[in-house]
Amino acid sequence: MAQSMAKLPVVIILDMAKGYGWEPGSFGYEMVAKVRRLKDAAYAANVQVIHVNSMRRPTDHLEGNPTMMVGTEALDVIPELQPTNKDIIIYKRYLSGFSHNDLDYTLRTMGCDLVIIAGASTDNTVLWTSADAHQCRYRVVVVEDCTMVHRENEPPGAKEGALRIIRTVLKGEVIPLDQVISKYLVRRG
Amino acid sequence: MAQSMAKLPVVIILDMAKGYGWEPGSFGYEMVAKVRRLKDAAYAANVQVIHVNSMRRPTDHLEGNPTMMVGTEALDVIPELQPTNKDIIIYKRYLSGFSHNDLDYTLRTMGCDLVIIAGASTDNTVLWTSADAHQCRYRVVVVEDCTMVHRENEPPGAKEGALRIIRTVLKGEVIPLDQVISKYLVRRG
Amino acid sequence: MAQSMAKLPVVIILDMAKGYGWEPGSFGYEMVAKVRRLKDAAYAANVQVIHVNSMRRPTDHLEGNPTMMVGTEALDVIPELQPTNKDIIIYKRYLSGFSHNDLDYTLRTMGCDLVIIAGASTDNTVLWTSADAHQCRYRVVVVEDCTMVHRENEPPGAKEGALRIIRTVLKGEVIPLDQVISKYLVRRG
Amino acid sequence: MAQSMAKLPVVIILDMAKGYGWEPGSFGYEMVAKVRRLKDAAYAANVQVIHVNSMRRPTDHLEGNPTMMVGTEALDVIPELQPTNKDIIIYKRYLSGFSHNDLDYTLRTMGCDLVIIAGASTDNTVLWTSADAHQCRYRVVVVEDCTMVHRENEPPGAKEGALRIIRTVLKGEVIPLDQVISKYLVRRG
Repeated sequence: MAQSMAKLPVVIILDMAKGYGWEPGSFGYEMVAKVRRLKDAAYAANVQVIHVNSMRRPTDHLEGNPTMMVGTEALDVIPELQPTNKDIIIYKRYLSGFSHNDLDYTLRTMGCDLVIIAGASTDNTVLWTSADAHQCRYRVVVVEDCTMVHRENEPPGAKEGALRIIRTVLKGEVIPLDQVISKYLVRRG
Repeated sequence: MAQSMAKLPVVIILDMAKGYGWEPGSFGYEMVAKVRRLKDAAYAANVQVIHVNSMRRPTDHLEGNPTMMVGTEALDVIPELQPTNKDIIIYKRYLSGFSHNDLDYTLRTMGCDLVIIAGASTDNTVLWTSADAHQCRYRVVVVEDCTMVHRENEPPGAKEGALRIIRTVLKGEVIPLDQVISKYLVRRG
Repeated sequence: MAQSMAKLPVVIILDMAKGYGWEPGSFGYEMVAKVRRLKDAAYAANVQVIHVNSMRRPTDHLEGNPTMMVGTEALDVIPELQPTNKDIIIYKRYLSGFSHNDLDYTLRTMGCDLVIIAGASTDNTVLWTSADAHQCRYRVVVVEDCTMVHRENEPPGAKEGALRIIRTVLKGEVIPLDQVISKYLVRRG
Repeated sequence: MAQSMAKLPVVIILDMAKGYGWEPGSFGYEMVAKVRRLKDAAYAANVQVIHVNSMRRPTDHLEGNPTMMVGTEALDVIPELQPTNKDIIIYKRYLSGFSHNDLDYTLRTMGCDLVIIAGASTDNTVLWTSADAHQCRYRVVVVEDCTMVHRENEPPGAKEGALRIIRTVLKGEVIPLDQVISKYLVRRG
């Protein structure tokens, strides 16, 4: 299908950072292995991976006790997804992967036309990143089994509700990892 | 409660435009009278109203058969919410009320610190506008009975799901019109 | 020369609006005829023209007595450059043609890769528009005899100084109208 | 004078990075000691310093042989202006200090209303940063003897021409370091 051809797909992995508590045995940890597979498939296909992690500054005047403070280890990509020396690392200043940073400029100058989005949380960073990508006119693919609502005790439909919006409103493709790999992560020159 | 004090609230009404089919008897039309009340309360309280409507250009290369084309009547605020000569009219180029326009600049230069959001659709423009407002650090209030999913045959939880995200993720206040009026639309100097 | 091939050039005409006093006999009026020729050449070549004019709002809290207020005739393109029904009209909220509007989005979705810039003033709107275009990675061409410092009593080098920056720092091409026409405004499909 | 009161000034130092060749004996090196004094005065006055340095990525598709590549030492603030642990470090993706990064968001959330700009080059990064700051409605002060055109063999008026534009068009204040210190870098709580 012509529509499935992407000139230049890019994989965007959201908030898989130490500060968010991705520890063996912790809530949702089983997704990490899946995201590892996504990264490896991207490398094999010669597709660029971009990690986008949160970053706050002490001057931000955020309420409460904000984490993910600049200069701390919390901002680092978790060890399971290392090394990152093949990846682009971008920091987002608030919720969306595009918030107040060079993600759009970087995708645009690369010639990217389609983003493959993974990470957490589906109803937060993944949702806003999908919306901003769509509004900057990148095609949006979300990897269904590489995203989750990374907060315990959420109502059961939280993830599905966000994915429904991505499908219905943003016309995004929400498909499982195997399908993402066979459709978009095929070897490129 | 100190938290409820806003230095300068602004009412933002999204996509109540002729091109979206707000006709007597049509799906969802009963919300129009509520939004009229919201506008009147804002006027009475000397609070600025901003209408943000969609605008597409023929050069946008959008798929399908896009409506809301620049220069057409479809972009006009519906007659029930006229006159608009006290209001600011801003066009958004895509989904969010902030997309590729001067909404943030206009709010910022006014000194606005809180936005009261109404209009359609809750899981589309209202959701993205709330997220962008929050990420530009305006406090977000959504008028629960002045917003809807303005598409027929959506699953029943569509509106509630979007409002849950606004409440939980964006820490927005989602309250009914009467409460918005008594809390934020009190007469100002 | 390969470098001179543009996939999609667009002509941007800055601040040729009634509010800026382009009246027969007024300072700098002789440039209007040149800009008319530029527009006609663009039409003949099937190249899109975009007028970008200033727009202020009463809520902007600008110092002094700002002109170019929304809703006034001052914002209209001058009669000599009418009709504008083939053109795109975009309002800029401050100095640069890109300031707080959809110019970048519009160029980007069109597929534009090169902007041909004309209008006033060379050391103000033309300079900032050139810089923003360059930083959004459009190639920049400024029409040397279709731009001026539209303020009387400026030092003689004001225009040349700004053009030097465009040439040296922004790597822009600054060439006269005849050359712009023969190089970039050739008939397209 | 009321106009000189700033609620929250911030010092922005542009492109004083290793990759730009600020070595003892090199062209323009004598300015480094002045910028050191500016930083010390800011510290003494409890005013935040922000270093903004260039950063390119290998995927940027820039022409020629771009320097200032991410992950290299070239991006570091020069030793003479160390330590930077009291400072905010922000990377700009192209020319302006505001280009595709969180400078505006950071200033805005701090409550900054006035920026004191120093560094290189006056007719490039300093000029675009001043313009963007002005268009985001920060008051602009440029430290006359802490800025230079950091390229040899430029025409003599290059710096003055850029400062003239900052003064005339952007209504910026261009004053020497001593005056900046006595006017804006007075001890704050």
